[in-house]
Amino acid sequence: MTLVDQVLEGDRRAAARLISLLENDGREAQRALSELYAHTGRAHIVGVTGASGTGKSTLVAELAKEYRRRGQTVGIVSVDPTSPFSGGALLGDRIRMQELTKDTAVFMRSMATRGNLGGLARATGDAVKVLDAFGKQVIFVETVGAGQGEVEIAKNAHTVVVVEAPGLGDDIQAIKAGLLEIADLFVVNKADREGADRSVSALEAMLDLDSRQNRWRPPVLKTVALHGQGIAAVADALQSHLDYLRASGQYQTRERGRAEAELRALLARELLSDLMRRVPSAKFAAMVDAMAARQIDAHTAVRRLIAGG
Amino acid sequence: MTLVDQVLEGDRRAAARLISLLENDGREAQRALSELYAHTGRAHIVGVTGASGTGKSTLVAELAKEYRRRGQTVGIVSVDPTSPFSGGALLGDRIRMQELTKDTAVFMRSMATRGNLGGLARATGDAVKVLDAFGKQVIFVETVGAGQGEVEIAKNAHTVVVVEAPGLGDDIQAIKAGLLEIADLFVVNKADREGADRSVSALEAMLDLDSRQNRWRPPVLKTVALHGQGIAAVADALQSHLDYLRASGQYQTRERGRAEAELRALLARELLSDLMRRVPSAKFAAMVDAMAARQIDAHTAVRRLIAGG
Repeated sequence: MTLVDQVLEGDRRAAARLISLLENDGREAQRALSELYAHTGRAHIVGVTGASGTGKSTLVAELAKEYRRRGQTVGIVSVDPTSPFSGGALLGDRIRMQELTKDTAVFMRSMATRGNLGGLARATGDAVKVLDAFGKQVIFVETVGAGQGEVEIAKNAHTVVVVEAPGLGDDIQAIKAGLLEIADLFVVNKADREGADRSVSALEAMLDLDSRQNRWRPPVLKTVALHGQGIAAVADALQSHLDYLRASGQYQTRERGRAEAELRALLARELLSDLMRRVPSAKFAAMVDAMAARQIDAHTAVRRLIAGG
Repeated sequence: MTLVDQVLEGDRRAAARLISLLENDGREAQRALSELYAHTGRAHIVGVTGASGTGKSTLVAELAKEYRRRGQTVGIVSVDPTSPFSGGALLGDRIRMQELTKDTAVFMRSMATRGNLGGLARATGDAVKVLDAFGKQVIFVETVGAGQGEVEIAKNAHTVVVVEAPGLGDDIQAIKAGLLEIADLFVVNKADREGADRSVSALEAMLDLDSRQNRWRPPVLKTVALHGQGIAAVADALQSHLDYLRASGQYQTRERGRAEAELRALLARELLSDLMRRVPSAKFAAMVDAMAARQIDAHTAVRRLIAGG
């Protein structure tokens, strides 16, 4: 039985192995993913992003339990190296995770964050596709919200949740960092802390300023994920957003946008590989040397390689 | 007189205009940059990365003043939307910046962080090249350290400074986030706070574990940038690292590595543009539709477009 068949039959170890192979960017793994692609497109992909200290891993864990109570299967992909899902867990976190680990309907995976960002974004997208084909009905992608790269990864989701916490002093930073534009839902977690209502008001005030018409207005919800408070309301809001995407036709628009971005990225990569196979490596090395010595600039080098390659 | 000539003659407004044109990715601006390229390669490029709250902008401002006292000209490129260099300044910051703003030997520039990461990394690299050709002897590139994308940007520097502060509770996060591998120098800023020595010990302990032989061991320095304390020692360490890079041949290795990465990225981009000009847009759109409908996967679409394009 092929790895693809094993994944489609629900073999957890096969799914885990395929994701590892994809992380290492193996050709065979890419072929397997091509075969699985027809079986994707069914999961609700939810990006969850926020700074460390906002408790977003706890929120994801509690949401996973809520979805399980509602009879849905869950995938979790973590791109945060400090997340408990990545093994960087305090004891309390680990106990909370154990409950999920024992549930075979939940699949957790953390992505290695070594290597370059393009590779990380691609591997994360690949892992989501595997879990989608594997039959997970909702897939959470957890990222640290501070970086542009993480925003890129979150953009691949159907629904983006931005998590804040009172007293971190960076409500406005999140907004300035461009998260306002990608958020479909704001969660002020640790809402039992002082300043939670102020955080909510600040976010609502920013949303009031948003002049885009006829669009989904992101709800701002309060949770205390550590005590399971407010979680059901978040799950409801996620479902409402999915319903909105479908009814408004934006679901289709997002799917097309994602497909186009993926196609362009893979095209660029394959065209480059093709050219690199044709160009003698000594010629390429000489071009790089000339660039390092400032004898030639990148545009000139590119023209020569494309013309002569 | 062309924009290139104006920049080479030291016209600040011309340099600022060229960077803006490059941010918008104009063809003409790219041609101007090609002409300037021969005049680059002289500046010491210093990446400064760290979470918000570490005071890295204040550190950069104080380092800029120190380099001025040493008779060097300074460029500052900020990729942090919350940095005072980007206008997001508290009053105290603004007063500190004013001193720099009045000094025409200092050129400050913040990059717009909208748009995609690839574009941001490219525009930042372009801005550094302009300031290098413009004659700035040291160029600081300030990024928020939390994201993989920022790490990518910092990698383009000759010397990478990772800034921490005691009590933020994320010493270990910085280490886990892969910053240990790219740091050439650690600065524990706000060292008058409790826990500074603990932060230093934690970093030194991590460095002790690093088994790579015959390499530069990143010094761990304490500063109180707000009061100008420890700044001269950081400037000295930056100079030592530059001397080390030159003496060990790594300067040349880094320059080659950067040239190669730039060449590959531009090649991929140009090859994609060439193909997109040849492929009828209706055909491309149909391919994207088929992908969104899961009738075809990206690898198959790529093969068909390259074969038939």
